[in-house]
Formats: sequence, structure tokens, C-alpha cells
Amino acid sequence: MDYNERAMVLHREWQGKIEVTARAAVDTKEALSVAYTPGVAEPCLAIQREPALSFSLTRRWNLVAVVTDGTAVLGLGDIGPEAGMPVMEGKCVLFKAFGGVDAFPLCIRSHDVDEIVNTVALLAGSFGGINLEDISAPRCFEIERRLKARCDIPIFHDDQHGTAIVTAAAMLGALRLTGRTLAEQSAVVCGAGAAGIAVTRLLMGMGLGSVILCDRQGAIYEGRPGLTAEKARMAALSNREGRRGTLADAMKGADVFIGVSGPGIVTGEMIKSMKPNPIVFAMSNPTPEIWPAEALKAGASVVGTGRSDFPNQINNVLAFPGVFRGALDARAKDITDEMKLAAVHAIAGLISDEELSADYIIPEPFDKRVAPAVAKAVFTAAKGAAMEGFTSSL
Amino acid sequence: MDYNERAMVLHREWQGKIEVTARAAVDTKEALSVAYTPGVAEPCLAIQREPALSFSLTRRWNLVAVVTDGTAVLGLGDIGPEAGMPVMEGKCVLFKAFGGVDAFPLCIRSHDVDEIVNTVALLAGSFGGINLEDISAPRCFEIERRLKARCDIPIFHDDQHGTAIVTAAAMLGALRLTGRTLAEQSAVVCGAGAAGIAVTRLLMGMGLGSVILCDRQGAIYEGRPGLTAEKARMAALSNREGRRGTLADAMKGADVFIGVSGPGIVTGEMIKSMKPNPIVFAMSNPTPEIWPAEALKAGASVVGTGRSDFPNQINNVLAFPGVFRGALDARAKDITDEMKLAAVHAIAGLISDEELSADYIIPEPFDKRVAPAVAKAVFTAAKGAAMEGFTSSL
Repeated sequence: MDYNERAMVLHREWQGKIEVTARAAVDTKEALSVAYTPGVAEPCLAIQREPALSFSLTRRWNLVAVVTDGTAVLGLGDIGPEAGMPVMEGKCVLFKAFGGVDAFPLCIRSHDVDEIVNTVALLAGSFGGINLEDISAPRCFEIERRLKARCDIPIFHDDQHGTAIVTAAAMLGALRLTGRTLAEQSAVVCGAGAAGIAVTRLLMGMGLGSVILCDRQGAIYEGRPGLTAEKARMAALSNREGRRGTLADAMKGADVFIGVSGPGIVTGEMIKSMKPNPIVFAMSNPTPEIWPAEALKAGASVVGTGRSDFPNQINNVLAFPGVFRGALDARAKDITDEMKLAAVHAIAGLISDEELSADYIIPEPFDKRVAPAVAKAVFTAAKGAAMEGFTSSL
Repeated sequence: MDYNERAMVLHREWQGKIEVTARAAVDTKEALSVAYTPGVAEPCLAIQREPALSFSLTRRWNLVAVVTDGTAVLGLGDIGPEAGMPVMEGKCVLFKAFGGVDAFPLCIRSHDVDEIVNTVALLAGSFGGINLEDISAPRCFEIERRLKARCDIPIFHDDQHGTAIVTAAAMLGALRLTGRTLAEQSAVVCGAGAAGIAVTRLLMGMGLGSVILCDRQGAIYEGRPGLTAEKARMAALSNREGRRGTLADAMKGADVFIGVSGPGIVTGEMIKSMKPNPIVFAMSNPTPEIWPAEALKAGASVVGTGRSDFPNQINNVLAFPGVFRGALDARAKDITDEMKLAAVHAIAGLISDEELSADYIIPEPFDKRVAPAVAKAVFTAAKGAAMEGFTSSL
């Protein structure tokens, strides 16, 4: 049986990958009287007097909604909210397994930005954080921006920021290995959706020398006709020389290639046209932009992919469980750039100089040190100061 | 320590009365590949092709949202969504303990009918049913009506229909005990909120002889100034003699008193003014409209309350877990009047003629036979035919 068949068999057996269970008993009159009426009135009134108590008297302190509209699920596109649910349930399982976070999937039957924002904002009092997932660009940018402005709990679009954090951590590993600095690098980011734009923004914020963002039509430059608002913003910030042309044109002479686009669009020749010993992250899944062996043969010094069967798997699971664990433990109201940067350095910092190699620039997804380290760093950044005696609930 | 103190201590210890747990493992690359990418794409595509598969490949088949806006929580009134959460979590625990249903609480930050309806309707693809809870009248009527029209899953406002089902079951017990029929009874229902109106409607549908519905201003009659739309509808259906006056006036000569109103508003004199041997359900909680001893002294033949420390506790937990268990197992798209009636008869039918007494007209809340019996009856009613070999997932 291959993965697909096994997945169908197991999904039928599981009858759902998550479950809501009870932490309180109601098996006697006495138990019922404290977990429910009449005793429950007391915590209700306590929260009414002091709303922050909803974070200690209910599950809110540990609860994250995983929200999608089903428009950009995996590489499958707009398959709808119900069909997106198996992915969302899987994400919730990862939240629990790696971060100890209770995550609950909500799939919204709407493509309308106003409706999605309103639905999530009106539910913000029931959760400690919101993880947006698999919402197509450019709607995802506006949805996240408006929710951040409206909600008093952290909003995190994982396809943007989870990907950006893990890519940046891998980049720090690759630079350390090759003895280079971020400021010296010229990069090409291929794919101008949620991931590509967030990766570009984060690396620029960290001091990347220069970057050209490419979409299906090639380099994005200021004044290119038909740019979306988000791409126009990126055009104004990146590609300072205003270079035009195809992806192949953009890659000529670049130090770094980062692909979050589609399968097989990069050739060995394109790698050879880059500066010597380029860094290549070909993260399209399951088929990368270029296979690792071909990239290495063409001169790449380090290659990362999204796949578990090659070295240097750049996988969001390294980020989101610890990011939310730290944010929830700190009762953060937002996930700031400082918190994201703290996560980047926490992931990258787990690999010692001795361990670092072309096959090991980023920790494995199952490395149990990662989530607690990320949680601690994010917590500290959220608190804005080094904390003595910090204990995460991980 | 009294109930209130113990409730506070325990709510702090529980750190939430519900938890989201994982049913699938993600502890190895292989496990991750079937529960998440790339294998998960297969059940996603299967649901996209055939949306009903969301009821077997995800948790939807067993999942009910417990939805409130926090406007009518217990007897506490409009305490807000966050403060309502301890009650909603408690309700979810009851759903699991008595019905095996995964219930998840959603507290909505809005008082606006349109916003509440829209929020719930857009999430209907993530759940197998919606339990509306503690939403104030008359908004609750419109919210339920509009959601029933818009959603393809069962919508059930427990404060209305749960209360009505359990009250009707107790009424059948009291009538059997006293050898009377529903058609002969004249009733007074005190309290014209969600519960009072639903109780009146259901008993009328079952053939109640006559009924006068009262609110704080006394009898509701056609043409009374200032009636809400819902009360005007009830005025047109009930009180056919158009009687006016106070609650005390309405009770004169009645066979049955049903209170879902406030503490201590009925006196022994008012009971004495009723027909001989009246049936008295004084369900205001925690303080009934009249204490059982006083009602019995004034001539009542049977008394029921909402309290666990008196005989004949009329408690919604007898209905909602089994109602949803049956509706979910049948994949019902609605909870119809037939399904509610089936639940009434299933509850009442558990007490044999030999067991029936003035202290035992309705099963105890902890009677483990109730939820499976209700589930089976509701399932059968939903399927519209007697089912051979029915097995509930209870």
C-alpha cells in the first residue's frame, strides 16, 4: 500500500484525528454542582469582573484556532472548507504533539475577506491565539492585517511566517557553514505568494544584501503592469536595481536561490549561472524546483528542500508549535517581528559549529529540543526582557 | 468550603474543563506522512469529490458546537462571551459524559442577530450540529429560525427545546400517575422567554387542552399592547378565551402550573385557587417559584423542580446528549418536531407503571438508560422508520 492508500484506510479508522475530551468529572451530583450549575456561576462572575481570568479559569490559555477557508490547501488549490479539514486536523495534531497546544480546526464557508475577518474576530474571546492556514494570496495578507488590528490575541498566518522563520533559520545555518554574512548575499526568491513574500520580508528585515522576488511572469519590479497591491509594495522594497526579465535572468550572478513555487522550474544551467557555491533552497513540495543531486552537481554549496527524504528539511513544524507555546505562555497579544526573530535564532542556535555540515544546517523536524527552545525564546522576546526562572508548560 | 468556593478552586486546578486531544500519531516520519503531508491530500481530494465524506474522514460526524453570545447565562443575564465560557465548557463535558459527543464551545463577541447568524452559518461545514445556548429572548428565536433555514446540519436551542422535551416528559409521567389526559388539562405557563414559549408550543403540539402564557405583566392575550413578535404569535395561538389579569388571576381554576420564571412568585393561596390536585412544575433555579413542601401542603398532587435535592428534577441533561447522539448517528440535517416528540416519549417510557409515584415521574439525571433510549428514539424518528439492528455509538 502506498501513502495515499494508507492515508485513506487510516483516516477511515481514526474517524477524525482530533477529539474533544473532558478534564472535569460530572459523574455525581456533587461533581456536577461544581463543574456545572450552580457552582459554575462563581467562575463566570469572576471573569465578568476581570476578563483576563478567562485565561486561567477556562481552556483559553492553551487554545488556538486553526482557521482556513480552504482556498490554498497544500498544493491542491481551492478545494473548499470541508475538504481542507483533514489538513487542519493534522495541523492540530502537530500543535498538540510538538507544542502541547490545544488546537481546534475551523473551516469557514466564505471567500469574502470581510466575512472571514468578522467571523474570526467575533470568536477571538474563545481562543488564546489564531493560526491562519492555507488561505490564498493576496487575500491572506489583508485578512491577517485586519485581524491583527482588531484582535487582542496573537494572529499568525503560518504559510507566511512559519515558512519565513524556518527558511531564515536554515539560511543562518548555510551562511555560518560557508563563512558568509547575510549582508553580502544577493538572493532570488521564486514564488510571490504568502510564503515568498514573507520570506523576502523577514530576510530583508534581518539585513539581506539584495533580493529579487519572482512570480510566474519573472522578476517583480516597480511599475510592472498588473501588480497586486502586495506585489507592488514588494516591488518598492526589493529589486532596487529594477531588474526585469525571467527567473533565469534574475538568477544570473545571485548568491542565493529560494524556491517556494512549483516543481522542476530550475535547471542545472540556471544554478551554474549563479555566483560560485550558491545556496539553494528548493522548497516546492513534494517535487522541488530542482532535485538536490542536480543542484549540487551544478555547484550548489548547500541544498535544502521541504522533503523528509533529503537532508536539510525546511519544515514549518520547527516553528509554529514553539511560537504559539511561547506566545501563549507569555499571554502575548500579538506575534511581533522580535518574537519571529527570536524563533529564527533559537532554531539556528541548536546546531553547534562542530555539528554543522552541508547535510545539517537546520535541526530535524523530530528534534525534541526545538519546540522548547523556540518557546523559551519567543516567550522572552514577548516579555521584552530576559526572564529568570522561566518555565514553559512544555 | 461551599459550592462557590469549591468551584473556584477546582476551576483553577482544571485549567479548562475540556481539552483537544490527538487520535493520530505523528511521532515518526511514516506516521507524519499519512496523518499529514503528503498522504493527507488523498482524504482531502475524496471529500472534495464527495462532500458527505467529511462525516467519515474527519471528526465532523461527532462534533457539535456549543454556541453562545453570553447574553442569558444561567440566571446571571448578559455577562458577555468570555464570562459565559465556564458554562459552555461544562455543557461540553456533559455532552461527552452522557452522549459521547465531542462538543466545542464558541462564544461570540456580538449581540447582533445578523452577525451571530453569519458567524455560525459560515462554520457549519466544520461541525455535525449546533447547540445554541444561553442566548437571550427574543433574539434567540430569530437566530434559531434563520440558522435552521441556512444550515445543512441540526440547529438546536437547548434553552428552548431541551427544556420543552424534559418538561413534556415529566408531564406525561404526572398525567399517567394521576390518570388524566393532556387534552383535559388547562395549564398556566409562567415565563415567556425561550423556555416558556418552547414548553407551551410543544405541549400544545402534543394536544394540551388549553394554556395561558404569562410574563411579568401577567397573562399574554391577543392585542395586549407592547408584545414582541414572538409573544404576539403566542397570544394568537394560546389563551383562546382572551383572559386578562395577573398570574394569580390566570392560575384560578387551572389544572397545571409550569414555572420557568423567577424565585418565590407563587404562593400557597395561588395553588389553592387552582383545580383540585393540580400538577406543579416550579423550575426556576436555584430558588423555585414555590417550594415543593408548600405546594404539596396547598394541595398539589405532584411537584417537579429544577433542583437535584428534591424529587422529580426536570433537567435538560436528560434530553440534549441523546438528542444529538441520535441526530448525529442518523446524519440528520435538522431536529424536527417528530424527533423532539420521540425524545419525550423515550424519557417518559423508562418509568414503568409499578415504579411511577409522586416522587418519581421522570428519570434521574444520572440514569444511564436515558441517553441511549433518547438517542435510539431520535435516530429512528430521523430515519422516519423503525430500524432493524440499530446500534448507537453510545
